[in-house]
Amino acid sequence: MATGPDTTALELDKDVAVPEDLEDLALQDDYGLNPEYVERVIDAADRGDDEHLRELVEALHPADVADLMGFLSPAYREALVPLLAPAELADILAELDTEIREEVLESVSTDALATALGDLDSDDAADVVDDLEDDKRDAVLAAMSEVDRHAIQTSLGYKDETAGRLMQREVIASPQFWTVGQALEHVRQSSDLPELFFDVSVVDPSFRPLGAAPVSRLVTAKPETLMTQIMEPVIELTVDMDQEEVAYAFEKYRLISAPVVDAGGRLVGQITVDDIVGIIREESEEDTLALAGVSDVGRDASIMEITKSRFWWLFINLGTALLASGVISLFEGQIDKIVALAVLAPIVPSMGGNAGTQTVTVAVRAMATKEMSSANVLRIVWRETAVGLLNGCAFAVLMGVVAGLWFHGAVLGLVIGLAMIINLFAAALAGILIPIALEKMGYDPAVSSVIFLTTVTDCVGFFSFLGLATLLLL
Amino acid sequence: MATGPDTTALELDKDVAVPEDLEDLALQDDYGLNPEYVERVIDAADRGDDEHLRELVEALHPADVADLMGFLSPAYREALVPLLAPAELADILAELDTEIREEVLESVSTDALATALGDLDSDDAADVVDDLEDDKRDAVLAAMSEVDRHAIQTSLGYKDETAGRLMQREVIASPQFWTVGQALEHVRQSSDLPELFFDVSVVDPSFRPLGAAPVSRLVTAKPETLMTQIMEPVIELTVDMDQEEVAYAFEKYRLISAPVVDAGGRLVGQITVDDIVGIIREESEEDTLALAGVSDVGRDASIMEITKSRFWWLFINLGTALLASGVISLFEGQIDKIVALAVLAPIVPSMGGNAGTQTVTVAVRAMATKEMSSANVLRIVWRETAVGLLNGCAFAVLMGVVAGLWFHGAVLGLVIGLAMIINLFAAALAGILIPIALEKMGYDPAVSSVIFLTTVTDCVGFFSFLGLATLLLL
Repeated sequence: MATGPDTTALELDKDVAVPEDLEDLALQDDYGLNPEYVERVIDAADRGDDEHLRELVEALHPADVADLMGFLSPAYREALVPLLAPAELADILAELDTEIREEVLESVSTDALATALGDLDSDDAADVVDDLEDDKRDAVLAAMSEVDRHAIQTSLGYKDETAGRLMQREVIASPQFWTVGQALEHVRQSSDLPELFFDVSVVDPSFRPLGAAPVSRLVTAKPETLMTQIMEPVIELTVDMDQEEVAYAFEKYRLISAPVVDAGGRLVGQITVDDIVGIIREESEEDTLALAGVSDVGRDASIMEITKSRFWWLFINLGTALLASGVISLFEGQIDKIVALAVLAPIVPSMGGNAGTQTVTVAVRAMATKEMSSANVLRIVWRETAVGLLNGCAFAVLMGVVAGLWFHGAVLGLVIGLAMIINLFAAALAGILIPIALEKMGYDPAVSSVIFLTTVTDCVGFFSFLGLATLLLL
Repeated sequence: MATGPDTTALELDKDVAVPEDLEDLALQDDYGLNPEYVERVIDAADRGDDEHLRELVEALHPADVADLMGFLSPAYREALVPLLAPAELADILAELDTEIREEVLESVSTDALATALGDLDSDDAADVVDDLEDDKRDAVLAAMSEVDRHAIQTSLGYKDETAGRLMQREVIASPQFWTVGQALEHVRQSSDLPELFFDVSVVDPSFRPLGAAPVSRLVTAKPETLMTQIMEPVIELTVDMDQEEVAYAFEKYRLISAPVVDAGGRLVGQITVDDIVGIIREESEEDTLALAGVSDVGRDASIMEITKSRFWWLFINLGTALLASGVISLFEGQIDKIVALAVLAPIVPSMGGNAGTQTVTVAVRAMATKEMSSANVLRIVWRETAVGLLNGCAFAVLMGVVAGLWFHGAVLGLVIGLAMIINLFAAALAGILIPIALEKMGYDPAVSSVIFLTTVTDCVGFFSFLGLATLLLL
């Protein structure tokens, strides 16, 4: 189905200059930044060879320069920043991690920054301005053009992590009675187009979106075709929509861009997929990290900051562990009589914790991808508890036999087997109900489900094993 | 910066028909499928009201129909499939989960399927054909046009989860000496264009990509401009590149589309971002699930399948727990003398397991996003062990005091404090070195790191606490 022209008979046209940056991209091993390249940059900086340094950096994609900054120490970054042209600086600022960006922003002059920001789409520019100290922000905004300043201020008026904040205000719109030819003419004469655009919105007289025509269809349609004939339905996003919802809509409907409307349904901006791809990973990573009790403090955080960020999760876990110890201490007398109980006791809670974590992870993921809804929640609860019971029975037999043989006691085997069934059932039930309850109460189920879960599995695990031992063995 | 025409003075043009599906989208509460809608579908199916059923389904976005299928039981799905037109069926097939897709494919006739697949881009069509039983696959391919069949067979020739498999073979290419006007003319006359396209590749005489011109720039450039003047550098993907690498490149460089080249560097297809967004989430979810010991068996898996898929992780964990019990049993005599040891013993391994999981999660994530590389691996190892030692000291003091007060023994407090430092240090070291080692050996660090980690933290935890108690208390 390839529709390329037959080029086998073509001859190389020597007059056509291949842009320099194309050759430069070939400099790299693959498309990424490699350690040797970082070495060469450090070498050049050490020698104070600004010209070579500039060449090395210019040869890189802005995203790779941002990566490079992350690998360099602050002193090298300081040597590098003044060498960047405003347009380059702008692109790199949009890609940098927050911590490094703040540092870089401090070292750039107000005027250079105002020029650089003028080159960015309004969403990226607002993102950068938001990171500035109050004083500098005012100065930079004052140095920008009226139009750009207004766009950035409007953008910052929306809450963080909402569609309003993510959108760029640059949109191309066509009234519904225009033809393709009129729309193309309008595009050609517009002066402040987005850097790239993928479609032209079709709006009604109140500027409400009716649909959008992909640019590729504008190109192939006859000029006299009405825009309404080639437009496609759109998924409208509202300015206050959470970025997680926005990402979900893009993924589900495979959107390339989507119009953003205000409370009155009027078109106020658009979001394009290149701004969403990163958010999809972020949102999904947030869950992964939260499940393990890690909050993202950025890759440039100090050791003390990281230690503190991990401390509290461990602190709460210590509480859970102490509670479990409290349960064990209820049975001190029994352990004194049968020391095998102390040897076997940690097994049942450990299995419960692992089985429950499997369930919690599945539940959190099903919620994030909206696979779990009120329509099927009962089925999922039933499925998880059934799985918990089945694996509980399997491990009851396994562990029962092992314990029975190890300590030459069939009743001890029975005790640990029964405790295993009870705890794996409790783990499944807690593993599915805790995230559902947290979500219903408006909390992020990824953040605290595991804490509550292990409290349940530790306490039920120790209590059922030691309690059954008291009943059946003593 | 909004560049819309001033439409406040425009009057509604009554002659312009708003496409029906636009109104239908408004039927829904928000853009997603809601439980009431599912109820209405089930109602219509129960009444055998095919016409209403067809209306309800036609009003939905194909992605929502795919979701709807997931919520319905097989009998309802069977009632629904025959009502779909070939083009609709094609779009929905591309969105369905594998298990449901297999079921639906069985119920569709060979001819209907061949027609439906002809409507899809080659990557989506190949994906569906790959799911067919051998007999049916041959029959369907035989019923397709020569061109479509060839495209699908070529696509299936590439390994699963590679760029070759993901790409669509439909590309638009321009020789380097063409002008924008010539390229646009070529686009208008091509009969087999991709469903949507975002740029025109510029190739040399051997069909090697030199760059690509975004369609939005084609539209705004003067017709006599050379394609090489408006093209931008491209990131080339090779046919054998793993889909994780592909997703990484799209995310990092914010790509909308990228050319795919064969071993000789010749353009053979392209990948567009809409096919990548889902993969980014999948890859990142795979890690989340793998860290918790869950393999994705699909949402339609039976309870037995799910139970089995979770069994093996728990089985290995049972081995770890038994090993830990073995460590405890070395100290049976000591526990017999001081029963407080049995009460406190699980605390140190539990804290180690949690702290180590934090480190493993951070490490796995840093590897997935390539934040960790040979250039900074030593710094990260140092950072993690420092964090482990610091939190080890903090919890040593905390837990030492608690244990000392609880059991009226300062030495017992000292013992658990020292054990805490040792185990949190071991947890940090294991948490960072295990994933690095697994990655170096070519294994997925997300899959088995936690197992090895808990083996370390359980054994070191119990051994250090009970061992120190033996040395200092007895």
